[in-house]
Amino acid sequence: MVSEKMRELGTKKSTIREIFEYGRKRAQEVGEENICDFSLGNPNVPAPDFIKQAVLAIMTEMEPQAVHGYTIAPGNPAVRETLAASINERFGTHFSGRNLFMTAGAAAAITVCFKALAEEGDEFIAFAPFFPEYRCFVESVGANLRVVPAKTEDFQIDFVALEERLSPRTKGVIVNSPNNPSGAVYSEKTIKELAALLRKKQQEYDHPIFLISDEPYREIAYGCEVPYITKYYENTLVCYSYSKSFSLAGERIGYIVVPDETVDFSSVYGAVAGAARVLTHVNAPSLWQLVVARCARLSSDITPYEKNGTMLYEGLVRAGFSCVKPQGAFYLFPRALEADDYAFCERAKKYDLLLVPGTDFGCPGHFRASYCIKEQTIERSLPLFEKLAEEYGI
Amino acid sequence: MVSEKMRELGTKKSTIREIFEYGRKRAQEVGEENICDFSLGNPNVPAPDFIKQAVLAIMTEMEPQAVHGYTIAPGNPAVRETLAASINERFGTHFSGRNLFMTAGAAAAITVCFKALAEEGDEFIAFAPFFPEYRCFVESVGANLRVVPAKTEDFQIDFVALEERLSPRTKGVIVNSPNNPSGAVYSEKTIKELAALLRKKQQEYDHPIFLISDEPYREIAYGCEVPYITKYYENTLVCYSYSKSFSLAGERIGYIVVPDETVDFSSVYGAVAGAARVLTHVNAPSLWQLVVARCARLSSDITPYEKNGTMLYEGLVRAGFSCVKPQGAFYLFPRALEADDYAFCERAKKYDLLLVPGTDFGCPGHFRASYCIKEQTIERSLPLFEKLAEEYGI
Repeated sequence: MVSEKMRELGTKKSTIREIFEYGRKRAQEVGEENICDFSLGNPNVPAPDFIKQAVLAIMTEMEPQAVHGYTIAPGNPAVRETLAASINERFGTHFSGRNLFMTAGAAAAITVCFKALAEEGDEFIAFAPFFPEYRCFVESVGANLRVVPAKTEDFQIDFVALEERLSPRTKGVIVNSPNNPSGAVYSEKTIKELAALLRKKQQEYDHPIFLISDEPYREIAYGCEVPYITKYYENTLVCYSYSKSFSLAGERIGYIVVPDETVDFSSVYGAVAGAARVLTHVNAPSLWQLVVARCARLSSDITPYEKNGTMLYEGLVRAGFSCVKPQGAFYLFPRALEADDYAFCERAKKYDLLLVPGTDFGCPGHFRASYCIKEQTIERSLPLFEKLAEEYGI
Repeated sequence: MVSEKMRELGTKKSTIREIFEYGRKRAQEVGEENICDFSLGNPNVPAPDFIKQAVLAIMTEMEPQAVHGYTIAPGNPAVRETLAASINERFGTHFSGRNLFMTAGAAAAITVCFKALAEEGDEFIAFAPFFPEYRCFVESVGANLRVVPAKTEDFQIDFVALEERLSPRTKGVIVNSPNNPSGAVYSEKTIKELAALLRKKQQEYDHPIFLISDEPYREIAYGCEVPYITKYYENTLVCYSYSKSFSLAGERIGYIVVPDETVDFSSVYGAVAGAARVLTHVNAPSLWQLVVARCARLSSDITPYEKNGTMLYEGLVRAGFSCVKPQGAFYLFPRALEADDYAFCERAKKYDLLLVPGTDFGCPGHFRASYCIKEQTIERSLPLFEKLAEEYGI
């Protein structure tokens, strides 16, 4: 009657959504202030005031048709020029507007890239831990996802495991740095090694392997460089979003970068345009295109995230948890205190600590704690984490 | 290397786009004011002032997180309640928020519906003349499009031809009234007859046939009723957009209505949610959700379109063209003055009249003229249409 696959995808709740909804119910019983909800990645730093000022200026200074009319499919040409120039200033790249395709955020961008690239039976590779929707996006374009197990000591790349999974069917490799959920940032060394391996394999297989860089957390890094990957590997497609950097998660605005150096620019950009067309992701929201262009050289204050992250990290380590220190994004990904991370997260609920099992991110034995929440919630949670650890004899 | 199909879809220009670009070039040679460009359906009535006032109020009165944070996948619950109530007030329906799924406009809405419903080998039926992207959207979900030829005397439905094309593989039928490109509005009689035929065929095939009502032009009708189709046929999915009614084409905001009366509401709504998820069309732009809810009971002044339409219609008839009088949308779809509509549109270019061949809409021997343009352009075009007709000895 309907597509059974779509019905399943639309009616099965994600674990994160279930935990969040449990929290909403529990809050009604014991009070909002007694719930420590670490489940969602919704930015708690409000969109900066310059966003509001940009919206007000555009709405009062410009003609409605110039603001709200159709843009061409890849987006407003002037906007794309401005964004390209600002990327160039920051990273020493050489893009122009023609390298950008505006999208409704990074999720739309990576879906468009998968659709643009995939032919039946192709494979994409992701590194655990990874954003669980990757699987659903990849499979929906008729391709398969292969997963490289996590290198849990630092959440960089296990290159031996990667090489085992690369095959002549590999169409692309997905990286996400700063990472959701581990908070890791790939070092320049990691990127260089990755580029070298992919280049070797491209030669061996005699076809391009694309690196799809999912970068919603690019601006949220604490005192470390986030290498701009197109400078290291030519067949890189960058998927960027303003959801986290400008706290505009609901507004759906971002872009894809297709560098000139890509193996065959006009084919790749053409396929991106075709995929955006059939997925009806042409003409990203036009007011937001104008807003992000006006704010291209501005940045949010990320110190609240850094402060939260440090407090939670230090508190957990003090309580006896083992955790890689995060370098970016707003998540911690500690080891669970028992092998079964679902059982661990269930037990944490006794203390109204709402955590997401690592299994959901392809990395069992861990849990994710989002720290884009109120500072007071983190403060209140620390003694509870200690009690939880005590239950495990720690 | 990339998906060949996507590359093709992304690099082949649509006829409309080609004509438009030809016009831009020609404008540089002979001056903007000498081009009569009837090619695009970009609303020329600016977004009404209440839109601007709503944006300013939301941006100054509400907290940024409440405006720009993620909404749940189907959209802000309060927004959906408000929109459902306003539909009920106008059309005597009984929807609540749970019947609505917010989308990035009507194109996204129909794509989500196709993806939600289609299984491999399913068929969807469209009535010529039709929006050419239907074919690309339907085929991209693995289904086939069958076309019912136009009933050119009034652009209502040729039921004999429809019945010939209905088959056990028919998953859905697409209607678009007021129609792009014919300007026709389906009468209540047409809708009732359509509902009766589909009900008969549902019984015969023992499975539901969905009616997908693509309604971006619902508010743009000139003194006639546009029947609300869910009241006539239970398995109707309504795809609505504010692109034309509020001149917000660039902002990507609309919704799908899944009525309670649908054969299995939770499966159909679930499949819509699943399709929106894999197509990354969850959480329509959040500011715009709030804006359209605030403006739900307001409407634009469509008299400029009506005035343009009448002037162009009368001018063309005077010049000897044969044309069904439009009842809605902002297009005329007259007969071309020779059988080959491409040749006719080529000849019209001599007078800098830019028209779109009917073949592009599955209806040869006609041409589309968009009249959502400046009144002066229409005034200036009329003697040119007369000269063109003279060439054909009319």
